[in-house]
Amino acid sequence: MSGKVLVDTSSVKAIEWKDNELVLLDQRILPHKEEYVSCTCVEDVFVAIRAMIVRGAPAIGICAAYGVVLSAQSRSVFSDEAVSAIERDIEHLRTARPTAVNLMWALDVMLEELSEERRGDLSVEILLDKAKQIHSDDIFNNLLMGELACAVIGKLEQGPSSVLTHCNAGALATGGYGTALGVVRAMWESGLLERVFADETRPWLQGARLTVWELEKDGIPVVLNVDCAASWVMKNKQVKWLIVGADRIAANGDVVNKIGTYGLAIQAKYHGVKVMVVAPSSTVDMQSRHGEEIEIEMRDLREVRALSGQLISLADVDAVNPVFDITPASLVDFIVTEKGVIHNPDALKMNELFGV
Amino acid sequence: MSGKVLVDTSSVKAIEWKDNELVLLDQRILPHKEEYVSCTCVEDVFVAIRAMIVRGAPAIGICAAYGVVLSAQSRSVFSDEAVSAIERDIEHLRTARPTAVNLMWALDVMLEELSEERRGDLSVEILLDKAKQIHSDDIFNNLLMGELACAVIGKLEQGPSSVLTHCNAGALATGGYGTALGVVRAMWESGLLERVFADETRPWLQGARLTVWELEKDGIPVVLNVDCAASWVMKNKQVKWLIVGADRIAANGDVVNKIGTYGLAIQAKYHGVKVMVVAPSSTVDMQSRHGEEIEIEMRDLREVRALSGQLISLADVDAVNPVFDITPASLVDFIVTEKGVIHNPDALKMNELFGV
Repeated sequence: MSGKVLVDTSSVKAIEWKDNELVLLDQRILPHKEEYVSCTCVEDVFVAIRAMIVRGAPAIGICAAYGVVLSAQSRSVFSDEAVSAIERDIEHLRTARPTAVNLMWALDVMLEELSEERRGDLSVEILLDKAKQIHSDDIFNNLLMGELACAVIGKLEQGPSSVLTHCNAGALATGGYGTALGVVRAMWESGLLERVFADETRPWLQGARLTVWELEKDGIPVVLNVDCAASWVMKNKQVKWLIVGADRIAANGDVVNKIGTYGLAIQAKYHGVKVMVVAPSSTVDMQSRHGEEIEIEMRDLREVRALSGQLISLADVDAVNPVFDITPASLVDFIVTEKGVIHNPDALKMNELFGV
Repeated sequence: MSGKVLVDTSSVKAIEWKDNELVLLDQRILPHKEEYVSCTCVEDVFVAIRAMIVRGAPAIGICAAYGVVLSAQSRSVFSDEAVSAIERDIEHLRTARPTAVNLMWALDVMLEELSEERRGDLSVEILLDKAKQIHSDDIFNNLLMGELACAVIGKLEQGPSSVLTHCNAGALATGGYGTALGVVRAMWESGLLERVFADETRPWLQGARLTVWELEKDGIPVVLNVDCAASWVMKNKQVKWLIVGADRIAANGDVVNKIGTYGLAIQAKYHGVKVMVVAPSSTVDMQSRHGEEIEIEMRDLREVRALSGQLISLADVDAVNPVFDITPASLVDFIVTEKGVIHNPDALKMNELFGV
């Protein structure tokens, strides 16, 4: 690495531990309202994750870790019963959303602190330190991934490139700075970015609501397009890179990410647009041999039939609402993690970097 | 052809000439309200087309023809001045929307009736008969295309297939029965259809609002999906055919259709899903050698920033809003017109069927 000091230049603070509470920016009502929700108990955190007050795989993991702190805070002593109750809360938190593996990873890290060997030292402070470490490590990893990605992009491109992104893999989806949008920020700081095209990302509109808001806040040029204009944008707007995050990456390099990513990767290949997936190594699930083994969350059909409670189709029309899809490794050019970059991912290269 | 009697089985009547007025189903507010708008003068028709009260390339052409009747109806005698005024109205109608060539075609047909040789016989009745003929020919052509397409599909498929469609190329977009949805209706009647997946089709949501409404009305099984779930649907729901309409087809077989069609055709190729474009020959523009020569309408950015009139992003965010895109002939398996079916279209085959 360059040895330069890495600084989180994003002005968004979506997750904050403050006065023994977890304070979350309510991402459901952005960009119209900037309101914060306080979680004072573990159930508040469960609901915040389930209801998508907070979303984004890394952000969910961080919040779940703070959720364990809130669970511990509610116990006066750490008796065996109290520890068992915290462990039950951890199992409960795991079920908030099924696809993001960072959630499981963060909860496993917290669970270790409850192990018999460490039980004697157990305190709320120790758990809080661990959660804060998960949080700050995530930001640092994002900064590192921005550096690593820019090194790759800088080698391949002569001047600034336009980027298409999908969903929001930004400061809002992580501890800060962002994964895909972290790379976008790093490109901007290095003079490698022309502008960002943001897919609106139905049904939750994370692109229109969150990516646009977050990039405009930081003065990075962003253009909004409907999802199905992606090929038009690639062809007519000199897009060179499709840069997205990931909710889970299988052992062969298959990428589970927001619905639409798979189709975008196909369209990118057709146009010679390079596909870069940016995610911390906690997103890698070496237990899943390939993407098809990963459970894809199916959400309420009303999300497709309506928007913010406003019906856009018939109330009872049959619909499908998969939240994620699986992009085969063959469609991915680069996987960027804080541990390194994989070009043309496959099981062998994944095992070299992430195998135990 | 089979010689069987072709009947428009669709229950939708979106365009009707009644009591010297053009009565249009207001497609902007479907499926929530079923309201009709009366056009009593040519300017009403211009506004109805521009504001998308009526939309769909064939439907626009038909309405424009009735618009010429309304222009004639407002003159007491057919003096040279009156005919010139009607001709000016025709030129005005041409500018209502730039991409659909059926609009130009229908207005040319009407213009012929105003020519010097025919001027002596000119009457409102003659113009009305011509407009009604354009209307009924369109329905008949749709029925014929349904037959022709089913002959192709029946040969290639063993049993019923699932179909993905985009936008609304149905009874609502035509004189009746529909182009792409005409084929869907014919498949349903012939036992060739499993179910239809309808892309919601942002930004105007013609799929969610119109295709769903129209197919449910006729009891044809339809499932709604967000646009960016198309690849997931193709892969997981045994979709065999992508069937769409067209707003203009160039002399080499390039297809201009609703934004998203191009990307869908790329995704269809990847999945081995066959791409069928269904449009009357009045959609074919042999003057445009290829798609890139055709003007693509760009509409108001507020259509992208909002969904059903409700702001979904920042009010001033930069955006792109191309209404159509160009699908190269190389991505199209079949072009179906009332004049015949072209497999793997190219300039030579197009010229054989449509050359003068």
